Amino acid sequence: MPHIAVNNELAGIRGLLNFRPETAEPLGELANILLKDTEGLTPTERELIATHVSYLNDCFYCHTSHGAIACIYLDGDKDIVDAVRINAETAPVSNKLKALLAIAGKVQKSGKAVEPGDIERARNAGATDRDIHDTVLIAAAFCMFNRYVDGLAANTPTDLSTYETRARQVAERGYGKHIYTTKTNV
Amino acid sequence: MPHIAVNNELAGIRGLLNFRPETAEPLGELANILLKDTEGLTPTERELIATHVSYLNDCFYCHTSHGAIACIYLDGDKDIVDAVRINAETAPVSNKLKALLAIAGKVQKSGKAVEPGDIERARNAGATDRDIHDTVLIAAAFCMFNRYVDGLAANTPTDLSTYETRARQVAERGYGKHIYTTKTNV
Repeated sequence: MPHIAVNNELAGIRGLLNFRPETAEPLGELANILLKDTEGLTPTERELIATHVSYLNDCFYCHTSHGAIACIYLDGDKDIVDAVRINAETAPVSNKLKALLAIAGKVQKSGKAVEPGDIERARNAGATDRDIHDTVLIAAAFCMFNRYVDGLAANTPTDLSTYETRARQVAERGYGKHIYTTKTNV
Repeated sequence: MPHIAVNNELAGIRGLLNFRPETAEPLGELANILLKDTEGLTPTERELIATHVSYLNDCFYCHTSHGAIACIYLDGDKDIVDAVRINAETAPVSNKLKALLAIAGKVQKSGKAVEPGDIERARNAGATDRDIHDTVLIAAAFCMFNRYVDGLAANTPTDLSTYETRARQVAERGYGKHIYTTKTNV
């Protein structure tokens, strides 16, 4: 049960965003830029970074939601998403994404854990300053989103098919207001 | 030295915001709502929560900046800020703020660390759902800001007087665009 009185028809972060629309707006804008931007990192790579960090933070709602969105972008290839979730180094992704996922994993622990060698590895694999910036900020932002969801004990559906339905809506329409105003318990 | 090429005339998060103005905008809006809102928690309480979490995350730039802003709101009472930074339970603040700082400290570790008993304690001390919501989101947001700053190894001035100068600007003008466009190395 959530720690505060949220609308029970809105699962996960959606109930929290609906509770406080003033903060929902910049949070949605931030998610849209960090996860839907097509310059530099692809939306798939962005969602995989978000999924990996959410998994490391043990946030079921977030890693399931974002994993489902990544899966849609990957034409249903759930294996890649599962591999990235659990062990980025052995996942079937580019060396550039592996290096960026390693940076994201360090950020999940602490900003200070990122070392010059981690950055050098990413650069050698083709990452730009913008890619590195976005990776660090996506990882940092999910350290916020995960804590927001679990810190208020948001409702977390256990039926996995509900995440797929919502993921399709986000893939099509982005992280806009529809996220916290469409009242279906998904 | 920062991990990416930022403008060296802009210290801390300011160089990062200037590097990517698209994400700077929602981040600034979020900070303005969470830290300057006068409904429920006061701006002083909000800055103290931000300072405490940043201190727990060992982010020198953030806990010094936000501590300096809280200090201005407290008419220069540095002792309260230092006490909250280090040990919220023994700090000379209200029981309500103590209970909220305890929740913030748990969020810093993990969202899952917050227990019903922590919420009950805050409620018994007079906290509303909105106060609890804002506390969790401020704490979560600083787990993002701290990682953003340290994960990219942002420039961190060691001269403490520079933080006071900037703090006065934020106290007067909020977390707007001036933060990352005024080029003084403060």
